[in-house]
Amino acid sequence: MRRRTLAAGEVAFRQGDRATAIFRVEAGRFRLVRHLEDGAGVALHVARVGETFAEAALFAASYHCDAVAEVESVLLAVPKADLLAALTREPEAALGYARHLGRQVRDLRAQLELRNIRNAPQRLLAWLHLHASGDPPVVMLDRPWTEIAPELGLTHEAVYRALAALQKARRIRRNKDMIRII
Amino acid sequence: MRRRTLAAGEVAFRQGDRATAIFRVEAGRFRLVRHLEDGAGVALHVARVGETFAEAALFAASYHCDAVAEVESVLLAVPKADLLAALTREPEAALGYARHLGRQVRDLRAQLELRNIRNAPQRLLAWLHLHASGDPPVVMLDRPWTEIAPELGLTHEAVYRALAALQKARRIRRNKDMIRII
Repeated sequence: MRRRTLAAGEVAFRQGDRATAIFRVEAGRFRLVRHLEDGAGVALHVARVGETFAEAALFAASYHCDAVAEVESVLLAVPKADLLAALTREPEAALGYARHLGRQVRDLRAQLELRNIRNAPQRLLAWLHLHASGDPPVVMLDRPWTEIAPELGLTHEAVYRALAALQKARRIRRNKDMIRII
Repeated sequence: MRRRTLAAGEVAFRQGDRATAIFRVEAGRFRLVRHLEDGAGVALHVARVGETFAEAALFAASYHCDAVAEVESVLLAVPKADLLAALTREPEAALGYARHLGRQVRDLRAQLELRNIRNAPQRLLAWLHLHASGDPPVVMLDRPWTEIAPELGLTHEAVYRALAALQKARRIRRNKDMIRII
């Protein structure tokens, strides 16, 4: 594994480059952009701290998009050849990797489904329900709202407004990082 | 593998049931709903023809949501024990499964990112770009718009309006199932 610091705007890899590694964001964030034959670009994803990206490159000859640091960022690169060798050698490791990806598929589907809720307070309430445990259900926040907002497809201002609306409607009660659903 | 036909409203599995299989939709569609301790339900996903679901159950003791047929549907069930045994026995199979999941992660992230484009014609244009090939870029449709619309997070009426708007603005040209991006 190799750790690398990139300045804002610096490129981790370009579309068409030979795929040599998959990545984990240690600090900052990366925008993945696919360029099209007519020159247009489409944003595919913004990978944030703790996320892996370019997993599909493990089975592809070349990267299918650019990865650009949006701010100064730190990246952990896992060489593809080493990872493939380990996964082939150890069925347990391959199953563990499938498990990691399976969870991501489940979480991404739930994120997509939440986007179908157009009303911001209702969308936030559904998100809280999914992240709550106990009866009455309680959410303990482990990240600031500025990090959660993009997952919800909302600006952080919209999240704060939605929180205030839910509080006013007595659907939630807040105490620092603890949110109780009523 | 076992093929099973379910009537509209029939349940393939319930949250908390012991996880015994993962599934592929052969016909119809299934709504996955997670029930919360306070009785609320949150829609997690709608699985459509060709999609697999409950992949995460492969590594869990029980299902974490209900799966309900929305219309009369046909389901292929792959017994979990058989699948796990095959994946453990054959590293190639485990890698192939990771590859399948890795592609899904990539596609779901791109779907999520498209949802950040609020303007429907612009969102549709980005989707067309992602599915086009050649120069000039051309999309050959292999499914009706009624199936593509939910992936875009739009009603099919909104998709037809967006297509008409793009055509009027001379951004696309249409000929049956072929769309040329201009």
